[in-house]
Amino acid sequence: MAIQEADLVRMSLDEVHAMAVKGLMQHGASSEQARTVADTITSAERDGCKSHGLFRLPGYIGSLKSGKITGDAVPVLSELAPAVVKVDAANGFASLPLEIGTNALAEKAREQGIAALAITNSYHFAALWPEAERLAEQGLVAFAFVTAKSYVAPAGGIKPLYGTNPMAFAWPREGKPPIVFDQASSASARGEIMIHERDGKPIPNDWAIDSEGNPTNDPTAALAGAQLPFGGYKGGSIALMVELLAGAMIGDVFSFEATANDVRDGGPPKRGEFMIAIDPSRCVAGGGAISQLAHAETLFAEILSQEGTRLPSDRRYLARESTPEEGITIPQSLYDECAALSG
Amino acid sequence: MAIQEADLVRMSLDEVHAMAVKGLMQHGASSEQARTVADTITSAERDGCKSHGLFRLPGYIGSLKSGKITGDAVPVLSELAPAVVKVDAANGFASLPLEIGTNALAEKAREQGIAALAITNSYHFAALWPEAERLAEQGLVAFAFVTAKSYVAPAGGIKPLYGTNPMAFAWPREGKPPIVFDQASSASARGEIMIHERDGKPIPNDWAIDSEGNPTNDPTAALAGAQLPFGGYKGGSIALMVELLAGAMIGDVFSFEATANDVRDGGPPKRGEFMIAIDPSRCVAGGGAISQLAHAETLFAEILSQEGTRLPSDRRYLARESTPEEGITIPQSLYDECAALSG
Repeated sequence: MAIQEADLVRMSLDEVHAMAVKGLMQHGASSEQARTVADTITSAERDGCKSHGLFRLPGYIGSLKSGKITGDAVPVLSELAPAVVKVDAANGFASLPLEIGTNALAEKAREQGIAALAITNSYHFAALWPEAERLAEQGLVAFAFVTAKSYVAPAGGIKPLYGTNPMAFAWPREGKPPIVFDQASSASARGEIMIHERDGKPIPNDWAIDSEGNPTNDPTAALAGAQLPFGGYKGGSIALMVELLAGAMIGDVFSFEATANDVRDGGPPKRGEFMIAIDPSRCVAGGGAISQLAHAETLFAEILSQEGTRLPSDRRYLARESTPEEGITIPQSLYDECAALSG
Repeated sequence: MAIQEADLVRMSLDEVHAMAVKGLMQHGASSEQARTVADTITSAERDGCKSHGLFRLPGYIGSLKSGKITGDAVPVLSELAPAVVKVDAANGFASLPLEIGTNALAEKAREQGIAALAITNSYHFAALWPEAERLAEQGLVAFAFVTAKSYVAPAGGIKPLYGTNPMAFAWPREGKPPIVFDQASSASARGEIMIHERDGKPIPNDWAIDSEGNPTNDPTAALAGAQLPFGGYKGGSIALMVELLAGAMIGDVFSFEATANDVRDGGPPKRGEFMIAIDPSRCVAGGGAISQLAHAETLFAEILSQEGTRLPSDRRYLARESTPEEGITIPQSLYDECAALSG
């Protein structure tokens, strides 16, 4: 039973999961669709990634209510080549296709050494680290790429074209959770600009330009203008790469097309995702990934020997140490909203 | 015959190639090693990438003279998995192993849909775009990753650890040269800092820190300190990814190990390279990459419809329009140095 603390509500991870399943199923999601989306939401809450936790449940449900997303979609797995698998999400959420797809991808990667997965016609409303981490937990090196709504100007340009286009990379470790980074190719998340607007704070230089293309520290002008890639044209190249991989290459849409197609119901636009998995034991003569993983630990030790450094994902894993036992908290208002949707 | 213009010497691309072959063979390179390194040098001159052209010939030859590099190395191709090939460069230059390896990689990618190539024990002294472009010219999507000497601090740290660690990505086009980006994960090339030092000019903010870890605009202090990743911690993540892929994963060294092992003879350190190739026609049901490539052109048109934008590689391709006919120029002093080495 959820416990109230001032204007926060404390919940166990099981309660988070149950609330998400209930809300999704009451609005037409099949049990498999609801379970896998709830897994995604719960893992975000577990790792302290609040912006991908229950905060998103009203959006998921809004997209069921609007009829945009097919709640009982049955994803279709197919083999396109000996080392390429595809899951057509059939207009459903991305979580179930990703569960099916990463299982098939892992098998292919072990068999072929490297393999790829295309997810099409899906609604991805979460971070990329869950699917990358899932593969690395099985000893594989993983990449994930996904497009988004078009908010980011191409290098040198002033109008939104690219999505914030995150890419994730994961590296397996022996006896420890994987190294995973999952980063937007925009200088900041869109949500960070929205939080600055809410709090009346200026945004840093280089995050965005206004609608005339001028640099701006005004979050409102930034939201009406365009976000910028991280690190100038180099981040722009990464954003372009993500568009090509998760868009044209797998026969899905670009961010600007996903945005044009979207019905603006609070949920994500329909789009594709592309993943690569590599079995490191198949990348050296004689096989056996252990020495490669042990070798990688020497690099991680070098990084951590410098004061002020940390490894990607460390903050998530720190949160994960306590939340399974202590649970998580969400604002009372969000709890009430989710409870009403699950009621 | 090379023609002198003031303190510049004009040469045809054939003359560039011949001078490189002659110089390399006179210092112990086999004809195949010399031909492929000369191809690399000549393609750089053809595309206006002077820093990877004849400018590097004395370094290549210095590494033969010092005995560090085996001039007549015979690369060994092997298949590690159905979709993974490896070329052991046998202590030689990277150009010949890359020619052998990309041919095998292209075949594997067409057969399996996606494939990987590991190059180990090689001396890579060039850009990554030639090998990425070679694959994309055959209709494949390509990635390349290579480590370097350790010059770059990890995010939050102050001591050099990562290499400038470029990654390249290439996308094929119908009837046009591929889209290729090839970018360091450091904020600037090391050579750019050296040019600022030579010219007595301050370097921009965010390029480097001094040996105490303080931000600096002084190129000399920067060279004694550490370069920074592009775009802060996000570029640092890319640099880390490159270390893991081109180092531990393929059983080769990290940048900091390559640096420690190197004899400082003006040539590059020994290290590995990792490539991925994808056949886009195997990433959609029904095959046929044409509609995917046509779709990508709509994105490129959107980019170019914004004033101030350009596509990656455009500058190189512009240079390529004239150099095959007009030739290239190099400083008299470099010409004299190369001529002496080839004499």
